[in-house]
Amino acid sequence: MTIVRALIPFVLSVAPCLPLQAAPAAPVSEATQACLDCHESATPGIVADWRASAHARTSPAEAVKRPELERRVSSTFEKGPSNEVVGCAECHKLRSEAHADAFDHNGFTISIVVSPADCAVCHAQEAEDYAHNIMAHAYGNLTGNAVYHQLMESINGVQTPGPKGLTATPADPLTTEDSCLYCHGTRVEVRGSAARETALGEMEFPVLTGWPNNGVGRLNPDGTMGSCAACHTRHAFSLAMARKPAACSGCHKGPDVPAYKVYTVSAHGRIYDAAGEKWDYGAVPWVPGRDFAAPTCAACHASLLADGDGGVIARRSHRMNDRLPLRLFGPVYATAHPVSPDTTTIRNAAGLPLPTELTGEPAAEHLIDAAEAKKREGALKSVCAQCHAASWIEGHFKRLDRSVETTNAMTLSATQLLLQAWDGGLAAGPARGGGLFDEAIERMWVEQWLFFANSVRFASAMGGADYGVFADGRWALAKNLRAMADHLKMLEAAAPGKKPKKR
Amino acid sequence: MTIVRALIPFVLSVAPCLPLQAAPAAPVSEATQACLDCHESATPGIVADWRASAHARTSPAEAVKRPELERRVSSTFEKGPSNEVVGCAECHKLRSEAHADAFDHNGFTISIVVSPADCAVCHAQEAEDYAHNIMAHAYGNLTGNAVYHQLMESINGVQTPGPKGLTATPADPLTTEDSCLYCHGTRVEVRGSAARETALGEMEFPVLTGWPNNGVGRLNPDGTMGSCAACHTRHAFSLAMARKPAACSGCHKGPDVPAYKVYTVSAHGRIYDAAGEKWDYGAVPWVPGRDFAAPTCAACHASLLADGDGGVIARRSHRMNDRLPLRLFGPVYATAHPVSPDTTTIRNAAGLPLPTELTGEPAAEHLIDAAEAKKREGALKSVCAQCHAASWIEGHFKRLDRSVETTNAMTLSATQLLLQAWDGGLAAGPARGGGLFDEAIERMWVEQWLFFANSVRFASAMGGADYGVFADGRWALAKNLRAMADHLKMLEAAAPGKKPKKR
Amino acid sequence: MTIVRALIPFVLSVAPCLPLQAAPAAPVSEATQACLDCHESATPGIVADWRASAHARTSPAEAVKRPELERRVSSTFEKGPSNEVVGCAECHKLRSEAHADAFDHNGFTISIVVSPADCAVCHAQEAEDYAHNIMAHAYGNLTGNAVYHQLMESINGVQTPGPKGLTATPADPLTTEDSCLYCHGTRVEVRGSAARETALGEMEFPVLTGWPNNGVGRLNPDGTMGSCAACHTRHAFSLAMARKPAACSGCHKGPDVPAYKVYTVSAHGRIYDAAGEKWDYGAVPWVPGRDFAAPTCAACHASLLADGDGGVIARRSHRMNDRLPLRLFGPVYATAHPVSPDTTTIRNAAGLPLPTELTGEPAAEHLIDAAEAKKREGALKSVCAQCHAASWIEGHFKRLDRSVETTNAMTLSATQLLLQAWDGGLAAGPARGGGLFDEAIERMWVEQWLFFANSVRFASAMGGADYGVFADGRWALAKNLRAMADHLKMLEAAAPGKKPKKR
Repeated sequence: MTIVRALIPFVLSVAPCLPLQAAPAAPVSEATQACLDCHESATPGIVADWRASAHARTSPAEAVKRPELERRVSSTFEKGPSNEVVGCAECHKLRSEAHADAFDHNGFTISIVVSPADCAVCHAQEAEDYAHNIMAHAYGNLTGNAVYHQLMESINGVQTPGPKGLTATPADPLTTEDSCLYCHGTRVEVRGSAARETALGEMEFPVLTGWPNNGVGRLNPDGTMGSCAACHTRHAFSLAMARKPAACSGCHKGPDVPAYKVYTVSAHGRIYDAAGEKWDYGAVPWVPGRDFAAPTCAACHASLLADGDGGVIARRSHRMNDRLPLRLFGPVYATAHPVSPDTTTIRNAAGLPLPTELTGEPAAEHLIDAAEAKKREGALKSVCAQCHAASWIEGHFKRLDRSVETTNAMTLSATQLLLQAWDGGLAAGPARGGGLFDEAIERMWVEQWLFFANSVRFASAMGGADYGVFADGRWALAKNLRAMADHLKMLEAAAPGKKPKKR
Repeated sequence: MTIVRALIPFVLSVAPCLPLQAAPAAPVSEATQACLDCHESATPGIVADWRASAHARTSPAEAVKRPELERRVSSTFEKGPSNEVVGCAECHKLRSEAHADAFDHNGFTISIVVSPADCAVCHAQEAEDYAHNIMAHAYGNLTGNAVYHQLMESINGVQTPGPKGLTATPADPLTTEDSCLYCHGTRVEVRGSAARETALGEMEFPVLTGWPNNGVGRLNPDGTMGSCAACHTRHAFSLAMARKPAACSGCHKGPDVPAYKVYTVSAHGRIYDAAGEKWDYGAVPWVPGRDFAAPTCAACHASLLADGDGGVIARRSHRMNDRLPLRLFGPVYATAHPVSPDTTTIRNAAGLPLPTELTGEPAAEHLIDAAEAKKREGALKSVCAQCHAASWIEGHFKRLDRSVETTNAMTLSATQLLLQAWDGGLAAGPARGGGLFDEAIERMWVEQWLFFANSVRFASAMGGADYGVFADGRWALAKNLRAMADHLKMLEAAAPGKKPKKR
Repeated sequence: MTIVRALIPFVLSVAPCLPLQAAPAAPVSEATQACLDCHESATPGIVADWRASAHARTSPAEAVKRPELERRVSSTFEKGPSNEVVGCAECHKLRSEAHADAFDHNGFTISIVVSPADCAVCHAQEAEDYAHNIMAHAYGNLTGNAVYHQLMESINGVQTPGPKGLTATPADPLTTEDSCLYCHGTRVEVRGSAARETALGEMEFPVLTGWPNNGVGRLNPDGTMGSCAACHTRHAFSLAMARKPAACSGCHKGPDVPAYKVYTVSAHGRIYDAAGEKWDYGAVPWVPGRDFAAPTCAACHASLLADGDGGVIARRSHRMNDRLPLRLFGPVYATAHPVSPDTTTIRNAAGLPLPTELTGEPAAEHLIDAAEAKKREGALKSVCAQCHAASWIEGHFKRLDRSVETTNAMTLSATQLLLQAWDGGLAAGPARGGGLFDEAIERMWVEQWLFFANSVRFASAMGGADYGVFADGRWALAKNLRAMADHLKMLEAAAPGKKPKKR
């Protein structure tokens, strides 16, 4: 009876917060303990975040012992995996010879910017996959492409009215980093060092350009590209977080790439919203039906999915487009995916760094061929097939293909109006030394493909209802085209003697 | 031992989170077991979804035994309710004589498209109500109305610049199904059959038009209208899901009908967001205060609400507009609700299939009268009264009425500008053989009522703050009108000799 | 013993859902009991809401006994705190001599509108802080400022086309209350009384203007300003609710002040979305790392934050801008915060009630000085420092400062185009007796600062990615400017003889 009595208050008092009955955690290294001794009070938030992470409870030695399909580490650990948990020092002390941002900090050589190459010590396959992800190249693909660089400048430069109309300053680095490069990633370089007052007295720290940033294509001081924290936010680096749709919303919610908005209204998103709180986002492998009832972004595009008997439905992919035949957004026209994730080397027949002509014909030699596209579509369809019959899936993809055709056609129509303006001298196009993106009618053209065609295609791809119609969808595509036509007429009236030149 | 015994009921009583202590589930029928034998591995996701559903745990025979107010089935079961759970076969084998999509599948005659008439075997009242819901008629009301059909074409057709300006192709079926009909519902018809490779060898399946689709007004191969899965997504068909606001967001989030967006910022939506995770969405009847602290869409418009003593506050309604006096969106002007959910028979004085004249006067004989409107408003107000005093409720509805007046007035002003354009030859209106929705100024007019007036009215109806002001609200109504006025001036300048014709 | 042993794991497994074992609640007063006797059935929803609140479980006498840092009441209770819980009567019977809306209700003198001064009986410091919050002055700052009053009229008036173009009626009170004043707060005044049928027979109630309303700057019948229920919704008045981001979304989600939208895509918002369901929103003080892993709106701007050892990181503030150096939205240009929360007394050099000239130069004597701004920025940075190193924080604020510069510059450019239109007679500006906000080009100018510049600045301040670029961000700033330039050209073509006048 005594035990029973003793039990009651215990159960009542501790129960609501019982921690996970985890096995005793692996030990913390001495170096990490030294970090914690100060940072527990210097930056308590991230320490707490880390303490709640799998990294804080598991050593690589334990992690490799898991059955292959359940394993979250993919490296071979040639020197043997460590028996200590993955703490501050385990990541920030890595590969200091490669890190231009390595510096002496209280007797330890640490670097500030942990890179995919650092994570690769345990997660080699993921880092390798990610290097082939077009997102890893997001910095160069934007800034190193003459056309997109011009678009970026037309957005970020400050314009001023002058005697000859509006002129623009070049975009300054702070603005660009805060704007396009927030998602694409900045170039982080060391520019000397500076002393800083801290709770422990003055200390010397490296000075970094482009800092802070967690963009997907960040150029890191160790020469690598990308930031794993873009999706697995610091310092929990949680699998569950990256599997929830919000993880993608940081960069995929705007009118240029409304994937997240479309997902939220799709049947999948509505089921997630209604029932997702009960799903298991931490299971490896991830089993449809058992762990979740409707896919999140990660389920279709990235996660290792298996059936209940351990059969692999889709391999884990940090390249992500290996389940995607079509590139729905980014270029002026939707096309097949590029062969190489580095798109700066692409040239179309007109010599422009674009995967299609300005009139839509694909620069085929730079793009994956039909067989590869079919293979990728097949990989995606095997995810769909967990819940949907073949006729459902086929009907869905047929509509998506048509949607690509019609949105490309509506983009071509807008391009033709733009060319009429350029040819007729109603806007200064490249042939007259003008930019592609400056003038009002050029910006209307940009919205045609960058906003409205993209929105329709995402809606078709994911079941996004109004994002294919009134919410930046077909309605906007059709309305914008008519507005461009009227704008041309009015420009003509305002510039007597000039006329749109019909081809 | 006494204490232990005393503890047991306590533990049980506090256990609201215990997995439902369901009685042993009713048995699965042989036919359903045969389905499961293959589909457990063929489409494991939907099988798992069903296993988690009430259908998988309860037989109709058990369901009818519940006290009337708690009952989720409404049929009389003339032949007696089944003792087996409601599984695959119980729905897909139903009424095969009526189903044009019925086919032989491994020895069973099943149909693909489960319709409201199939669900009516157990849920007769809900199906009956839904047949009177304007949503059930969403396909015909859109495609069979000459005006709205024209709007649909103006959105979905591909436009191309030609010598005489932009011309449009008719919308192709795949596009329309992916666009407007995604929500309104497609026409699903059998067009022969086709062989398909499956894990069990080649099989023959019907080929369906308009598939897949779960639109609210889907025309089904058994001749019925609607899809219960539009709100109760497959294959859980969950009551809780349909009661959560996200269920409605699939079709009610765009600028044309921003109900969900407005709800999220309303006081009700904010309370739902902050506290809704603790509410009981499965309780029947649904008791305000006990089961939830602020209404969701379903609470105001559909659910059976009762007080704690079993008094009915509002009867369950799948017609939904029986608690709604006003039709806030859809037509050019907000009006009383139509008498019949089939609106294709409505004609205004000008002979157009619209519930008002183009200048706003109601086609009164087709609309509910003041007494009926008052009755419906009363039904809604008795929901409000669970939390709000009479003066609060009156003040609220007074503002809504004013909002309807002012938004209709701002729509009339836009219409007058449009008529000036038509009369003056600055746009080709119907009198000159033009369409209602093609040209830029016509599309500006459409946004006046379809986007901005709707947004204001929803904001007034639900407390939507900025959706009544800067987020597509009164600001947009006022700005768009000025933009139309300037657009007219500029069209005039671009077409010398033509003038807006003031009436 | 066997049963006991068997019970242990069972109890442990169900325990996480045990209801809070609160101490026996303090007693309910007789007066409150009388309220409950009727209102339990008259308005069961709000009674249930209150029963779930801290007010229903705790008396002021218990509340004051908490250690200072954990205390939720701040008053000194000169007459001693009550031993009864805070129920209906405790709030609605307060200060009836000050309440113009006090009336006799079944033998009790109660008032309808509970005001900050009523809440101050227990929460004196919060009410005092709030009185210095610019939000408390939101009614007067809007309606009592000649410029903003004009903006409000230009939004809410009904426009009609006439022989001389569009003319507008003055906005009617019902519309204004439903529009701008929904958030800013209405003026609530007693206008006689009226009899009303109730379940208990006819009763007399005061008739109130501007009712219902819970706007932040509501003018109450007791002469005070504000509504605590704007954030702590009735009748739970929950701390947790106000700490969740949705609380702010009611008024801070539109294009004019997209704080909530920006937060949702920020790293903080994404972590909240993914992990926030496990955080403790009720803890006082609120400890970063222990109670939450990423800040919500309240964490940065209002809540009392402490470290795990009881050290205060940031004091609780209902003034809110004491951690904010810059006023990012509201005025035409972002500036330092005003010295006084009542901004109606501000005059710029041109005599306008604006904190800057129309060309951006600050009306410095009305604004906080650099030292005060630095102090406030320091207060905010000490919140950031819980998770971020100094170089991260510095980099972040440097970009924000640049963002303020560039958005102000892009606003100035738009203003210069507007002045060209006014000076050239292409729009009727104030010098010609026109308004500031009526015409199309004036409204384009408004969106430049009110929508696009604000969006960019919020994105910079909170890490909002696309809200700084394509989602109403720099793209829109740049596009709108070009559209204004073309609009000017077209107005010129439509009004031969008139020309934009370049300064």
